[in-house]
Amino acid sequence: MEKQYVVGIDVGGQTSKIGVVDARGDVLAQTVIRSDIYGDDANAFIEALAAATQGCIKDAGKEGEIRGIGVGAPNGNYYTGEVAFAPNLAWAAKQAVKFSEILSAAMGGIPVSLTNDANAAAMGEMAYGAARGMKNFIMITLGTGVGSGIVIDGKMVYGHDGFAGELGHTNVVRNNGRVCGCGRTGCLEAYCSAIGLAKTAREWLEMSSEPSSLRMIEKITSKDVYDAAKEGDKLALKVFDYTGSLLGRQFADFVAFSAPEAIVLFGGLARAKEFLYEPMMTAMEENLLKIWQGKVKIVFSQLKESDAAILGASALAWEL
Amino acid sequence: MEKQYVVGIDVGGQTSKIGVVDARGDVLAQTVIRSDIYGDDANAFIEALAAATQGCIKDAGKEGEIRGIGVGAPNGNYYTGEVAFAPNLAWAAKQAVKFSEILSAAMGGIPVSLTNDANAAAMGEMAYGAARGMKNFIMITLGTGVGSGIVIDGKMVYGHDGFAGELGHTNVVRNNGRVCGCGRTGCLEAYCSAIGLAKTAREWLEMSSEPSSLRMIEKITSKDVYDAAKEGDKLALKVFDYTGSLLGRQFADFVAFSAPEAIVLFGGLARAKEFLYEPMMTAMEENLLKIWQGKVKIVFSQLKESDAAILGASALAWEL
Repeated sequence: MEKQYVVGIDVGGQTSKIGVVDARGDVLAQTVIRSDIYGDDANAFIEALAAATQGCIKDAGKEGEIRGIGVGAPNGNYYTGEVAFAPNLAWAAKQAVKFSEILSAAMGGIPVSLTNDANAAAMGEMAYGAARGMKNFIMITLGTGVGSGIVIDGKMVYGHDGFAGELGHTNVVRNNGRVCGCGRTGCLEAYCSAIGLAKTAREWLEMSSEPSSLRMIEKITSKDVYDAAKEGDKLALKVFDYTGSLLGRQFADFVAFSAPEAIVLFGGLARAKEFLYEPMMTAMEENLLKIWQGKVKIVFSQLKESDAAILGASALAWEL
Repeated sequence: MEKQYVVGIDVGGQTSKIGVVDARGDVLAQTVIRSDIYGDDANAFIEALAAATQGCIKDAGKEGEIRGIGVGAPNGNYYTGEVAFAPNLAWAAKQAVKFSEILSAAMGGIPVSLTNDANAAAMGEMAYGAARGMKNFIMITLGTGVGSGIVIDGKMVYGHDGFAGELGHTNVVRNNGRVCGCGRTGCLEAYCSAIGLAKTAREWLEMSSEPSSLRMIEKITSKDVYDAAKEGDKLALKVFDYTGSLLGRQFADFVAFSAPEAIVLFGGLARAKEFLYEPMMTAMEENLLKIWQGKVKIVFSQLKESDAAILGASALAWEL
């Protein structure tokens, strides 16, 4: 009989989440381990991950019934199975780690499929979430950074080298753009990530004397801007307007590429739907070619954030 | 026995080219008809096209041996088989024409597959040209306009509605951009088409007093700029530098989308390879994410332009 369960693993900089998932997308058991206590010792981390995964499978009572393991990790490469030069993962920051190979060996040969975290999120949304039934959509993850996963004709786009879908690093401000983490300037991520949004607020507070409750806060985060906007703080609201507008106009160019049915948003910043949706939609419509005006949806993830990362990664394992 | 020949038809505003093609990409017979003498009578045009196609099949001695007909036409939609609201085709400028259906009926039921001209060019390049063996590339056609055809994992990208790949209408100049034919501003096409290049030359001549042989010409075309550049005219050379740079930096964003192996250039303006390649490549490299630097090729079509359009359209028919 074919094995009926899969494991989804979401590898992050601080923690990694592991879950055993059935075909309906129910998480039967899950656990979390620290990712940041192994220094640059990739083997030690992956061994700990394998041990926790085995424990989790045991908790679910599904030993011997796991078809495959799907993993979403920053800079995870679908083709090579490597996690390479991921700035936020100490054990893979300065090297290419044969992640799939090592994990599969540690798991007694259970096959492992790897992709980056944004692609995993897109897979999860397609299998269980807001993109169910869609064959063409673009997933944008708005978190610490801006990631993306592109689905065309029901298939994840990996490109020639497995690194397709770096839409956070398309240019949104051509002249005197902000420096981005990638070393270039004017990237979407430099403006529309959680960090970018907080930076916009800090810049505007410095440049103007407009009253704002944010002036009381020493180191402003995106959460502070969100809270202030909730209270009706005008500057905070304008920061969301600006951020949403930049996203929307960039979405218009993304649509010109793959003509998706929808843009699907996920991640911490996407929870600010109430402040982002309007300016985003307006800017997208203003910048769309006529043939697409009024036709492209912007939808927000319907998955619980705690489950979404595991579900996304697990969706990858069904293909194994 | 399976039928061994296909017909490729390239529908243009002034003329339409028809050819009978074998599996090796040899054009066994070809003909051309006028497209611009039927006013808005789509049926009359398609009937004339069918008659000419039948003549061409007869010339090739392949009656009864045609597997299918592939057609590339401006605004041709792969999913619907319609040519709709194509500004340069009088018979389809203000209506949606059920092109495939009408042509197939007029051809005694031979199946017809339709796509837009840039997609057809990409299919041709993949089957017979510079992209042979490539599974991930982006075709950019530099002609009167800027078109594009995107191939991912060996398949043409049509998107949700069949209109994917309008990269000529992504934004390249955000503030005070030139008005584009599509009604918006700052599109790549407004700068990097043959018309856009000539416009840049005219603008620069007006704005400066720099000597240039182009000052002698009343209505400057892209061909004039090319000829002047050949003679070493500095202003003309700078116009190509600028045009190439805009293309290159835009290519960097395209790469971030689908991670192609190469950008493939085709069309009248692509013949100015000697003046475009350097600035294009330099700007692309400067704007690429590190993971792609030094890894993405820019190649020029290897197909004879007279054959390319027919071959591209015919490539579509092999899928039938």
